[in-house]
Amino acid sequence: MELGKFITFEGGEGAGKTTQAKLLAEALEKAGVETLLTREPGGTFGAEAIRDLVLEGTSDRWSGMTELLLMYAARLDHVEKLIKPALHRGVWVISDRFADSSLAYQGYARGLGADRVKAVHEAVMGGFEPDLTILFDMDPVLAQKRVETRGEDLTRFDAEGLEFHKTLRSAFLAIADENPNRVHTVDADGARGNVQNRILFALTKQFPDLAGKVGA
Amino acid sequence: MELGKFITFEGGEGAGKTTQAKLLAEALEKAGVETLLTREPGGTFGAEAIRDLVLEGTSDRWSGMTELLLMYAARLDHVEKLIKPALHRGVWVISDRFADSSLAYQGYARGLGADRVKAVHEAVMGGFEPDLTILFDMDPVLAQKRVETRGEDLTRFDAEGLEFHKTLRSAFLAIADENPNRVHTVDADGARGNVQNRILFALTKQFPDLAGKVGA
Repeated sequence: MELGKFITFEGGEGAGKTTQAKLLAEALEKAGVETLLTREPGGTFGAEAIRDLVLEGTSDRWSGMTELLLMYAARLDHVEKLIKPALHRGVWVISDRFADSSLAYQGYARGLGADRVKAVHEAVMGGFEPDLTILFDMDPVLAQKRVETRGEDLTRFDAEGLEFHKTLRSAFLAIADENPNRVHTVDADGARGNVQNRILFALTKQFPDLAGKVGA
Repeated sequence: MELGKFITFEGGEGAGKTTQAKLLAEALEKAGVETLLTREPGGTFGAEAIRDLVLEGTSDRWSGMTELLLMYAARLDHVEKLIKPALHRGVWVISDRFADSSLAYQGYARGLGADRVKAVHEAVMGGFEPDLTILFDMDPVLAQKRVETRGEDLTRFDAEGLEFHKTLRSAFLAIADENPNRVHTVDADGARGNVQNRILFALTKQFPDLAGKVGA
């Protein structure tokens, strides 16, 4: 059986990743592609337990490297117990965040250094990578307004200042530059349907077999 | 101010590490050396929370690499928030288990491979190492009898079979061979006072300034 494809959604808070991940899963299912929608941190029972540890408490509860290790422990549980088994059954997997978030948040925005994050990534993940990453790019001022008005509880990442989110945006764009064959950057500003069309365009560019099947 | 020394106690279950760590801390305090006694996994509030995650549940809850990452997250919190600050105040620190346990348990006994464990260690810890490691060596059959009779709850490590503990012993001895300047192997079989004398002998060999001050 052919392996499923692994698609990740990346970018800062408030860019609409979660909504668009659901829309993409629906579009793929309609096209006859069995799809599993998941998220990081979390996705499995063990990873959720680790996620609770990472997100609770004050922003200085964990150092950057400790947080990175917790995130990678949760990620690995998620990959081993949910993502890889699904891919091996031929199911396509969409994950709301994956390893690029660690590189952007802990490596660049929190000052741990990209090299240290990449060293941990390599030691843990070996060569496992997404087949396609959609980067949601948006002006942080606009993204922050969205977060403030969407009525959700603020996690401690949202509580960071605007400068942090600007650094984060640059980090994600640098990752996209370094991985042109995997990462497609999408303008996340605009009506929901417009953003979805941009995503479907990137999808069919990466997987030409889907052209004409997912409404793009 | 002179830095404190970092001493770790390593070895399988049931070898008497915890009791001897207390005795050594008392001996150092009597000799006028301010000493902090701690343990792994745990030692700080954050590390204890991670420890609970690692030790609870069935033995297949986490894969070897996931467990390793959780242990290193706890270890780093412990080092950054407790061990290094104490050493910088001139306090000596004794830790009941440290990084050699990860290499022995996850690297050798659970089959993750020493190279992968060393890669994670290097990425996380850089060059931070104990000044002295006491390896408690004991026949696993004897050690297991001790664990069974000491009336404590069995953690899931104790529930592993005898073959596992034999592999673990070989692993610790291999680590001692690789690090002759840091690791001193002590025969952990015998009366409490005899084992303590062996430890004090290793201590004064590593730190000659203590000769005549700690009763050895």
